Amino acid sequence: MALNLTQKLVQAHLTEGDLTPGGDIALRIDQTLLQDVLGGLVMLELEAMGVERVKVGLAAQYIDHNLVQNDHLNADEHMFLRSACRRFGVWYSRPGNGISHPVHMQSFGKPGQTLVGSDSHTPAAGSLGMLAFGAGGVEVALAMAGQPLNLRMPRVWGVRLTGRLPDWVSAKDVILTMLARHGVEGGFGRIIEYYGPGLDGLTAMDRHVIANMGAEMGATTSVFPSDASTKAFLDGVGRGEDWIPLGADAGCTYDDHEEIDLSTVVPMIAKPSSPGNVVPVSEVAGTEIYQSYIGSSANPGFRDFAVAAAIVKGAQAHDRVSFDINPSTRVVLETLIRDGQLSDLIHAGARVHQAGCNGCIGMGQAPATGRNSLRTVPRNFPGRSGTREDSVFLCSPETAAASALTGVITDPRTLGMPYLRVEPPRMVAGNAAMLVAPLSEAEAREVALEKSANITTLPELGKLGASIRVPVLLKIGDDISTDDIMPAGARVMPYWSNIPRTSDFTFEPIDDTYPKRARQGGRERAGHAIVGGLNYGQGSSRENAALAPRYLGLETVLAKSFARIHWQNLVNFGVLPLTFVDPADYDRLELGDVIEIADVAAALSGGSEIDAGVRGGRERIRLRHDLSPRQVEVLLAGGVINWVRARIAA
Amino acid sequence: MALNLTQKLVQAHLTEGDLTPGGDIALRIDQTLLQDVLGGLVMLELEAMGVERVKVGLAAQYIDHNLVQNDHLNADEHMFLRSACRRFGVWYSRPGNGISHPVHMQSFGKPGQTLVGSDSHTPAAGSLGMLAFGAGGVEVALAMAGQPLNLRMPRVWGVRLTGRLPDWVSAKDVILTMLARHGVEGGFGRIIEYYGPGLDGLTAMDRHVIANMGAEMGATTSVFPSDASTKAFLDGVGRGEDWIPLGADAGCTYDDHEEIDLSTVVPMIAKPSSPGNVVPVSEVAGTEIYQSYIGSSANPGFRDFAVAAAIVKGAQAHDRVSFDINPSTRVVLETLIRDGQLSDLIHAGARVHQAGCNGCIGMGQAPATGRNSLRTVPRNFPGRSGTREDSVFLCSPETAAASALTGVITDPRTLGMPYLRVEPPRMVAGNAAMLVAPLSEAEAREVALEKSANITTLPELGKLGASIRVPVLLKIGDDISTDDIMPAGARVMPYWSNIPRTSDFTFEPIDDTYPKRARQGGRERAGHAIVGGLNYGQGSSRENAALAPRYLGLETVLAKSFARIHWQNLVNFGVLPLTFVDPADYDRLELGDVIEIADVAAALSGGSEIDAGVRGGRERIRLRHDLSPRQVEVLLAGGVINWVRARIAA
Repeated sequence: MALNLTQKLVQAHLTEGDLTPGGDIALRIDQTLLQDVLGGLVMLELEAMGVERVKVGLAAQYIDHNLVQNDHLNADEHMFLRSACRRFGVWYSRPGNGISHPVHMQSFGKPGQTLVGSDSHTPAAGSLGMLAFGAGGVEVALAMAGQPLNLRMPRVWGVRLTGRLPDWVSAKDVILTMLARHGVEGGFGRIIEYYGPGLDGLTAMDRHVIANMGAEMGATTSVFPSDASTKAFLDGVGRGEDWIPLGADAGCTYDDHEEIDLSTVVPMIAKPSSPGNVVPVSEVAGTEIYQSYIGSSANPGFRDFAVAAAIVKGAQAHDRVSFDINPSTRVVLETLIRDGQLSDLIHAGARVHQAGCNGCIGMGQAPATGRNSLRTVPRNFPGRSGTREDSVFLCSPETAAASALTGVITDPRTLGMPYLRVEPPRMVAGNAAMLVAPLSEAEAREVALEKSANITTLPELGKLGASIRVPVLLKIGDDISTDDIMPAGARVMPYWSNIPRTSDFTFEPIDDTYPKRARQGGRERAGHAIVGGLNYGQGSSRENAALAPRYLGLETVLAKSFARIHWQNLVNFGVLPLTFVDPADYDRLELGDVIEIADVAAALSGGSEIDAGVRGGRERIRLRHDLSPRQVEVLLAGGVINWVRARIAA
Repeated sequence: MALNLTQKLVQAHLTEGDLTPGGDIALRIDQTLLQDVLGGLVMLELEAMGVERVKVGLAAQYIDHNLVQNDHLNADEHMFLRSACRRFGVWYSRPGNGISHPVHMQSFGKPGQTLVGSDSHTPAAGSLGMLAFGAGGVEVALAMAGQPLNLRMPRVWGVRLTGRLPDWVSAKDVILTMLARHGVEGGFGRIIEYYGPGLDGLTAMDRHVIANMGAEMGATTSVFPSDASTKAFLDGVGRGEDWIPLGADAGCTYDDHEEIDLSTVVPMIAKPSSPGNVVPVSEVAGTEIYQSYIGSSANPGFRDFAVAAAIVKGAQAHDRVSFDINPSTRVVLETLIRDGQLSDLIHAGARVHQAGCNGCIGMGQAPATGRNSLRTVPRNFPGRSGTREDSVFLCSPETAAASALTGVITDPRTLGMPYLRVEPPRMVAGNAAMLVAPLSEAEAREVALEKSANITTLPELGKLGASIRVPVLLKIGDDISTDDIMPAGARVMPYWSNIPRTSDFTFEPIDDTYPKRARQGGRERAGHAIVGGLNYGQGSSRENAALAPRYLGLETVLAKSFARIHWQNLVNFGVLPLTFVDPADYDRLELGDVIEIADVAAALSGGSEIDAGVRGGRERIRLRHDLSPRQVEVLLAGGVINWVRARIAA
């Protein structure tokens, strides 16, 4: 049978299940990726599980998020992560070496391999023909311990690309076009597979842009073939030997279909405050801006900076504009220095920051109140920039650089200058010492974890009770992101390895009374429920968005639909995620309503539908659980840590 | 009469008084300098005084401190300062253009001119033969309004330099040697004037290092002649026409004398947590470090980075070490890029930050708890790094770079490599657009101040009462710095233009109950006193260290001695600074003791000694006020804003 590329990659790694969409499958994992804000918890999970040394082929830990050190917390955490890498046999990418996704792509990306990362943008590795998944940290911990990754086989969405991008239009405009067509839920339950003649005009780094922001559509991942562009990239970073050709079989089919004629794409921009709020740049041109920001894992390529440099070369950023350049990796930074673009940017007024995620995650560079910030980053959820009343737009480097010059949102085609198409350069050789290799097993055994006062062991979580009887403590609308549940930014992220402390910030952007109200439950095992709308838990993979509410007593979430990674995180930490069979029931539920589910174990094992009582049982609602048998076990055990520990003990 | 250079500079600017040490003088001011954490208050003071447009020859505002934007506060303040520069006719140096002192030196430094800056390191301009003073913001506001600067004529301390610095020893080691000899109070009431044949081996930027850290000795300022090195510097930055030769007259004399044979200087290091705690590097060699930090106004020269680059070129920073490079100015940064040093630093593992003060003032790059940080910055007061339990050493770039490689404190002479003496390069031409010129008077009149919610108008301060009768609310020891009184760092500095909010942090590092206790005074005009030891108010010139306690009710400080700038700040905000005639009285005073001074106006006007009652008048102590008649007026008016406003109204 002719297979598409996704099916071929899945089949090559299947340890359970088959290629039928919707079926439970388990995949052998070749590589894992951690970043620092979530890596701390994963290391504590490895410790809690009793793991001695990672069993995956390659495990890497990146320090890229918590780079602003305003007090001891982040530096202490870096030292903890360094010690944990030495202890468990993990590669350690030092602070300032760059953003996990492009550094991983440069250093370890290999066509045909699987990757799980505790970061929702891990699918960016699909640009090299990898099958790469963002997941909650504990899923990554399990993969590091040698376990396969469990998921439901997604539908495969074939997107056929034709034509060539016009001048002034680049990969970011392609994925913004996808978002304009399909919104932030368009990718649910799907893997997006790009193919067709249009691929010839897209470099591996262009594909990285598109694969990265597939996460903004809720896609399970995105996949590109491994072809001449892939080879050129690997040759460029000195790893040509890792290339193999990979592509769909001739005559294969897809579950869903899409076509984009690249020659028709125009500069696009996502308005505040959703990546799905996309319009052509021309529609908002002329709006005054405070900031033009270039960088992040969404536009990490050499070209993304070089094209901006070409636009501003010899000119000046408007004197009101903060023109912030965030190099994605040390290799890109060194190449930009060698080839002169960094000087052009600085001379035009750029503020250049160390290589890392930085302001994309609210770690510096927050805009002034209510002023417009143009960013090449992947997300513009409200407040994510660090400024509560922010106004962030997402766009291409071309649009950001053009707007930096004029001080207003500018369609780059109107600049009236010739377009400089940037060719991929010979990259500066990476500095191997910035990626510290794992110690030998003998050396690692001698290493102690260096825990500071802020690094706590994981809280013990109890089993799910025999029955659930909990009040609705929070009722919220559609598209609640994990940024809403667990804010990021420089104020909160340094505490992310400290669940008791982190829980104080839960739901702060939406209802800052939540933690206090949760704690006032009173009776022993005072639990509660949350009622959510569509796409509950979209955005980043941060598992503390499940663990912290769980710590505060959350037992079940009733929602119209869930974002995949967060849904998994809830299960992994013993919170029961349920959807409404009749979405209209969402409207019937009110704050304080008590949800009752009798004999949970029986209800979960008996099928996918569950009957729940409300208002003392006088009213009934039908709910759906959608859990695999393994997940039912995990839930009943009170989460995956308990479940694994029991298996290791048995 | 043969005059030394200091006397010549003073004489050329005298508007009142004469050259007798200790006498009150007033000086015509040619230039003023503001940085951003204190500039906000100054702009509010100009507004409160009713100033329409600055009257000084050149006024510049730098955005160099509050560069980490974790929320809206700093960006909002930048926008306010930009609007204030446009409103009042001030040069605006954009964020990322660099640290005020070296940018000012490159852009505006002129031998023979006077400069007042709201930053204690303003004396760095003495490197170019300027007479440059750090002062509280309101002194700068007065100078901007065209008023002369009032001070007491200091003694002139001639320091004769002979010989040449050995390999691996640089200017930082010279000023650390001065600190080793004389401590943090050694410069009180003095201007340090360097002269002698040893000057020939010191470039203008070397002299900047030495003049900058004269502030750490409490010196009023430091002065160097304008000679061939000065000309070479001005030629290098494209302003050769601003050079004039300046030096002491042959046969002049000095009030105090010192000699340093440069050939005998060795690598020196200030141990935690005082710039006066200096020992040879060899004495602490081998101590494990977490951080090596190069940058700040204390080592801002191209050579300071280039020598570090030469040391680490082709090698690797130890993988435990955070190797932080903070370019001092955009011009230095661009030159380091052009000439290859930045690549060498990055390739060796450096984290490169935007040009600015950054971690020197706790704005990022805080070290891990209790771990050692080697820094080329001027100050290591406890907690200034941002980490409460910090351990910061001050050293030369040579020592910092050598230690980055080894991971332990290292005397650079022991590296066993040849020393590369860095020649001053042809600097990259500065980007004029980063220094935004003042608007015309007509344009400026149309500009409104852009105040965000955090930018408040100055609180009104009442007049000093007819008598003082206040309890001692705080009794503290020697060398209390303005960092102790008003902490800096990323958490507090964004509020520095908001006195009610800032006052919550007053004395936090020493006694965080102080603001609360001050507010519980109860009765109307509940005031209080503070009892301090030697050198009260050392360190930075931040005037909120006077204004915030004044806002909380501080009426008088009784101390063994005061640091000059803070003493002036107290007077300017209506707080009476008094010293003990008998220092032993310090020991007699206890918390809660009520200090009584009857008929304050008569007491202040009647001479320098004041009789105060304690314990219901049963005991008496003799105090000294040391105020000029002008300062007595200012104090009685409740501070200089009230005093100026009354004069403008009259």
